[in-house]
Amino acid sequence: MQKLVLLRHGQSIWNQQNRFTGWTDVDLTAEGMRQAGQAGQLLRQHGYSFDIGFTSVLKRAIKTLDITLEELDLLWIPVQKSWRLNERFYGALQGLNKTETSEKYGAEQVQQWRRAPQAHPPALTRADPRFPGHDARYQHLTARELPLTENLSETLARVLPFWTEQIIPAIRGHQKVLVCAHGNSLRALVQYIDHLTDAEVTGLDIPCGVPLVYELDDDLNRLRHYYLE
Amino acid sequence: MQKLVLLRHGQSIWNQQNRFTGWTDVDLTAEGMRQAGQAGQLLRQHGYSFDIGFTSVLKRAIKTLDITLEELDLLWIPVQKSWRLNERFYGALQGLNKTETSEKYGAEQVQQWRRAPQAHPPALTRADPRFPGHDARYQHLTARELPLTENLSETLARVLPFWTEQIIPAIRGHQKVLVCAHGNSLRALVQYIDHLTDAEVTGLDIPCGVPLVYELDDDLNRLRHYYLE
Repeated sequence: MQKLVLLRHGQSIWNQQNRFTGWTDVDLTAEGMRQAGQAGQLLRQHGYSFDIGFTSVLKRAIKTLDITLEELDLLWIPVQKSWRLNERFYGALQGLNKTETSEKYGAEQVQQWRRAPQAHPPALTRADPRFPGHDARYQHLTARELPLTENLSETLARVLPFWTEQIIPAIRGHQKVLVCAHGNSLRALVQYIDHLTDAEVTGLDIPCGVPLVYELDDDLNRLRHYYLE
Repeated sequence: MQKLVLLRHGQSIWNQQNRFTGWTDVDLTAEGMRQAGQAGQLLRQHGYSFDIGFTSVLKRAIKTLDITLEELDLLWIPVQKSWRLNERFYGALQGLNKTETSEKYGAEQVQQWRRAPQAHPPALTRADPRFPGHDARYQHLTARELPLTENLSETLARVLPFWTEQIIPAIRGHQKVLVCAHGNSLRALVQYIDHLTDAEVTGLDIPCGVPLVYELDDDLNRLRHYYLE
């Protein structure tokens, strides 16, 4: 049996402001840093250790991982960052307030965009300053890989190569793995690991800063999963 | 012309307490964190950016790098950590107060141990709790690689493979490189890059938290070097 721990970043400034974030690189709030520290303390109290960490290229996840590893006195382990673990790309909704967006488009439409795996938020254009092609960290991505909008299935499609090529080999090599990522990149991963239908994943919400433990068999099938409390 | 930036970590708790540190994993002081932030601000003001960071497996260097990268809004770049960039291993001196050690062994002897490239501090034994073979982060090292004591030449000998195999290829690949390490691992590297004699390196002291810029030609020979102020 092997354990894998998934961790959603602590509260970000835009979580607090109730805005759609996506790939916008917003920082943690003080509460988010506290949540990250608490995640690390919980893992330490339960005797967890890790050989490698994986995270996105967004600072709210990177800093959550760093704070967690510092609590575990594991700042020295290798950490690999990839855009493939980024939050779902929220297209033209990025930066908008969720309540105002609901008033404009209707609560049902917004709930669809947020939760339904096949729903696409409105796309932005390549000329939009929010288009990731303008950001140095995404210069190595192909035109196809640079999103204009993403539904959850497309998020899963770009998370999966990283899962298959980086995370699975680490687990198979008996490394203890911590993945610190985002609400929707983790929902996509959980849908895949747990074979959830679109209907099942629609109701799934992963809280900020609470370690989600997967116990896996030798074929990396899930035996159990639970939040650490 | 390419630039390489070397950075010694900010003040550590044992710097402040005037104790020999070596591979002991002591944290930064508040002043050390301030120095790291200042290094980042300086680099930002001078328009520096980086594609990759290299550091040791000791938290005073890792945290200095993280704080510096955060000031530069570059937390997302890859960071590679290696024991080969660790501080010189100070043997049985690790943990001892420098003044008390001078009173016991004489100031001249202690100055030799600290600065003369061929001087070995007293070795510790494999049974000593300070022996790195007891630490999980060094489990993959061979018996020959695990030090009992090191002089500066031996520090250089284990830094060099990392320089040659990791840092040089990054520079040759036109990546902008930041190396955040330690007083003596950086002295060793500077001795190598600058072709310093043992006599010349004896007088060399690299201050905490001040970016040291190397301008290199296409053959990676030094054109200029200077501290950023």
